[in-house]
Amino acid sequence: MIVQMRTGTDERALEHVLNTITAAGHGHRVIAGTERNVIGVLGGAPSQDLLDRVQALPGVEMVIRISKPYKLASREFHPARTIVHIGNVEIGGETPVLMAGPCGLEGLELLALAREETGMPVVTEVMEPDQVSVVAEYADMLQIGSRNMSNFPLLRKAGRSGRPVLLKRGFSATIEEWLMSAEYVLAEGNEDVVLCERGIRSFDPIVRFTLDLTAVPLLKDLTHLPVIVDPSHGTGRRALVAPMSLAAIAAGADGLIVEVHHDPAQALCDGPQAILPDVLRQIADGMVHVHAAIRMPVLA
Amino acid sequence: MIVQMRTGTDERALEHVLNTITAAGHGHRVIAGTERNVIGVLGGAPSQDLLDRVQALPGVEMVIRISKPYKLASREFHPARTIVHIGNVEIGGETPVLMAGPCGLEGLELLALAREETGMPVVTEVMEPDQVSVVAEYADMLQIGSRNMSNFPLLRKAGRSGRPVLLKRGFSATIEEWLMSAEYVLAEGNEDVVLCERGIRSFDPIVRFTLDLTAVPLLKDLTHLPVIVDPSHGTGRRALVAPMSLAAIAAGADGLIVEVHHDPAQALCDGPQAILPDVLRQIADGMVHVHAAIRMPVLA
Amino acid sequence: MIVQMRTGTDERALEHVLNTITAAGHGHRVIAGTERNVIGVLGGAPSQDLLDRVQALPGVEMVIRISKPYKLASREFHPARTIVHIGNVEIGGETPVLMAGPCGLEGLELLALAREETGMPVVTEVMEPDQVSVVAEYADMLQIGSRNMSNFPLLRKAGRSGRPVLLKRGFSATIEEWLMSAEYVLAEGNEDVVLCERGIRSFDPIVRFTLDLTAVPLLKDLTHLPVIVDPSHGTGRRALVAPMSLAAIAAGADGLIVEVHHDPAQALCDGPQAILPDVLRQIADGMVHVHAAIRMPVLA
Amino acid sequence: MIVQMRTGTDERALEHVLNTITAAGHGHRVIAGTERNVIGVLGGAPSQDLLDRVQALPGVEMVIRISKPYKLASREFHPARTIVHIGNVEIGGETPVLMAGPCGLEGLELLALAREETGMPVVTEVMEPDQVSVVAEYADMLQIGSRNMSNFPLLRKAGRSGRPVLLKRGFSATIEEWLMSAEYVLAEGNEDVVLCERGIRSFDPIVRFTLDLTAVPLLKDLTHLPVIVDPSHGTGRRALVAPMSLAAIAAGADGLIVEVHHDPAQALCDGPQAILPDVLRQIADGMVHVHAAIRMPVLA
Repeated sequence: MIVQMRTGTDERALEHVLNTITAAGHGHRVIAGTERNVIGVLGGAPSQDLLDRVQALPGVEMVIRISKPYKLASREFHPARTIVHIGNVEIGGETPVLMAGPCGLEGLELLALAREETGMPVVTEVMEPDQVSVVAEYADMLQIGSRNMSNFPLLRKAGRSGRPVLLKRGFSATIEEWLMSAEYVLAEGNEDVVLCERGIRSFDPIVRFTLDLTAVPLLKDLTHLPVIVDPSHGTGRRALVAPMSLAAIAAGADGLIVEVHHDPAQALCDGPQAILPDVLRQIADGMVHVHAAIRMPVLA
Repeated sequence: MIVQMRTGTDERALEHVLNTITAAGHGHRVIAGTERNVIGVLGGAPSQDLLDRVQALPGVEMVIRISKPYKLASREFHPARTIVHIGNVEIGGETPVLMAGPCGLEGLELLALAREETGMPVVTEVMEPDQVSVVAEYADMLQIGSRNMSNFPLLRKAGRSGRPVLLKRGFSATIEEWLMSAEYVLAEGNEDVVLCERGIRSFDPIVRFTLDLTAVPLLKDLTHLPVIVDPSHGTGRRALVAPMSLAAIAAGADGLIVEVHHDPAQALCDGPQAILPDVLRQIADGMVHVHAAIRMPVLA
Repeated sequence: MIVQMRTGTDERALEHVLNTITAAGHGHRVIAGTERNVIGVLGGAPSQDLLDRVQALPGVEMVIRISKPYKLASREFHPARTIVHIGNVEIGGETPVLMAGPCGLEGLELLALAREETGMPVVTEVMEPDQVSVVAEYADMLQIGSRNMSNFPLLRKAGRSGRPVLLKRGFSATIEEWLMSAEYVLAEGNEDVVLCERGIRSFDPIVRFTLDLTAVPLLKDLTHLPVIVDPSHGTGRRALVAPMSLAAIAAGADGLIVEVHHDPAQALCDGPQAILPDVLRQIADGMVHVHAAIRMPVLA
Repeated sequence: MIVQMRTGTDERALEHVLNTITAAGHGHRVIAGTERNVIGVLGGAPSQDLLDRVQALPGVEMVIRISKPYKLASREFHPARTIVHIGNVEIGGETPVLMAGPCGLEGLELLALAREETGMPVVTEVMEPDQVSVVAEYADMLQIGSRNMSNFPLLRKAGRSGRPVLLKRGFSATIEEWLMSAEYVLAEGNEDVVLCERGIRSFDPIVRFTLDLTAVPLLKDLTHLPVIVDPSHGTGRRALVAPMSLAAIAAGADGLIVEVHHDPAQALCDGPQAILPDVLRQIADGMVHVHAAIRMPVLA
């Protein structure tokens, strides 16, 4: 933590800050600049509480956090990449995965039946803490939707469910806030979290959401957790799903989750962005080709 | 609902759209423009389902909703302004109200005691559906926080609690989405909803949130519900609370909710934006003066 | 143009609107809904002036433009894709192009010399109308930077320069505003405009700009002009340039423009995002592989 | 300037950074934290060039600028508030000013005539450097519009014009970028700059721009320059102009600039937001009352 004092503050204000830091069990080091004093706080990551307190002291211009607010999700403390296993499927392994489905689909028993018949893992969204234990019985993976990314009671409950969690990004969440939400699940002892970029809110009304593919390589650097992309909700338009799917794989994503329907115009939900099965096959083939392309060696 | 067809689409595409509209029980009227056809959908507000279906049909460029997606919250259908009563306090009446408090305060019994001693109404945040009935016993008003504005199970539970609801704006919610959330509470038969603007996310890192005061006169036109402003969370800085409080009243707000603490540097939460009791008194006096000023007659 | 009246407006307000439309030489058609009247305006694209006037009339809730505000840049009126030729290079043709260079480079004669020696086309930024004719003598292509996207005098001057124009997106411009800027160049008779996505401003301070790759397939649908991507300024970080370059090609971009430097730490400008020549070669090879991958046939 | 190293970087990377800092003529101080090293750079404000270079070095996580990038506009170095005089009018003095007018108005001689007849100062927008000297002959104040806030050749020319400059905020400019633009004018020796907030771009399509009134008290702390507000362009709707005008004054603005027209529906530009003369009088009276209200003493 770095504390930047205002220009022209007196010794008393500086001492007040230093005492507050000491009282919280931290050391400090003052850098006396020509314009202002800057204080480095020593001794491990300070609490949010200390940060807030110091920010509120007289003479303090700004407090800058240096250590990241998340630890368990951080690659600095956990360099090896996490691979999440769901049935026979690996997310975060060698090969990117393709997840597809209608989100309108109702009935947990129906889902369990589908899984039994096909062997395919089933992902189901949970929307309130009370649903978690029931859904966890039938689904192979729990999905936390964009609107619930900061629903902390739900995150904690999902963290204790014994099931892998697909954590969608809040549509106006920063990358750091998103990783903080993952931290809530990890803190319950659940190490199987998959992050899913699904578009952020921007100023251009031409699309419902702006797919933030830069988040993929950024997250690959910041966290050991797998990262997938939802180009269906992330663009809101069927015609954009295929090109943005391939772009996501080229950016390094560990997989895709897309909405598909044999008759999108009749789909109960996700109509405007659901693709036809034919397009799904194009994406399935295309992602294999693109993934191979980005792994080709550079010619000498 | 207006359906805008792509330039150069054939008759079959147009008929497919018209049939879909008819099948949903709506009439239609085609406006044949020089560049493209535009279809007006008749017979009341169409469902979101129809809107999504039509959007997904071949040849459709864009679907524009004409009727507002909220009804109960709309002033068009309920022109008289709602006044919410909490104890002896009126929100949305003649005089703007000032709500103040620390948000760190714990203990429902403690709150109930405080209310007994002072007669002041107590507002408490609820964060999950399960908390609602317990909190409703002790608090005079339930607060739904910014992160829970779209937590629909929580909104429905609050709607059935028998208590007035203070609904904070999601920090990246549009005005329309916010009114849609109010609609969830109103739909349970609870007419006592107070809207609270508390800052939206913008691109400038100089502030945590950008207080959107234009929301106040906009909402006064769109809805009959009272509107208050939270300049503490809405700016994130103590020095900005007083001027933005008075600006909120000048913009027509029905009240303010501010964080106050006798020693903000020691406050458990809301440190950087909590004001001292002295500043609270300045705001209390200032808001009376400003409210009087905006009601003064124009000189002939 | 569609005019949506407020619920409950009287006949006089409606007539005032209809007369204004007629006076501007347009026809109209009223759709009487259950809640409100909606007016369709006939007879070609209305002027912005008419749109603004009608918006200001009593009883008007909203005016919705149906026809696009740009024509020359629109694919609806010009379905064949434009290929821009610069020396031997084609932008918008079969093969994506890779443009690379330092932006600190000074001296027009130096540039002309470099071109003579290497045969490589030279792109130079113009920052004010007065520079255009001089720069056009030495450079093969004029670049309009992000901050000048709406500098209309500069756009017009570039349109009359006889040189192809590389038009970067304003970092907070909508796609429609960007195409409107291209329209200014095209309107001067210059058909050689290349659009360049270079990141938009968003709420997350983790990056300087959010690269909007969805703009690529969107533009491919809306306009006949070639679209390239600048992943250097569009991410602001060297480590993100290679993955986002490949993602741009996978999304369908006609090319890339990247900053490269043999010693980025010594580069006069563009330090944080300039890549080493080795990485440039990786991108050059990678883009060929990815471009081949997205053109592979789907397996039967 | 603070340099934050990545966790686990070796001595060589640290030394490379320290050498780069020393070579640029700065001192340094290393704070060895438990997780990472942090370097404080001493000896005055470092150049943007040094900042960029260090950011690009191996092992550097982030560079944080501590000193503000603007000096002349800063209140730290110029605590006394600037009052700009235009004719008999003072902007930034005791009384807030009201500026009103149509922006469609053409003809510099016409403007000069109007000024002669009425004595009122005339403000005219300049859109390219070449216009500055001609407009400066006829107008009392030059306006730089939102789209030109970062047109540096224009800013420099306006700085040498001998006329006060009204500098509108770019609709997606941060406060810091805005002050940097003011710095360009001030650097030419022109101390008469008035800042004008006119709305920023946000995610909610319900308004064209979001008026950022928090900018007013923020700027009052950061700069000595006067700050006025444009509620007409800043809201884009006539009905919002009066309440937001009074809110601006309550927030501490030094004045307002509003669009007025005797028949807004016929106005050539600014139709949707132009107000009637009657409303202008309401604002003129209201701002006097509100300004008096915010200066009233707190009751004991």
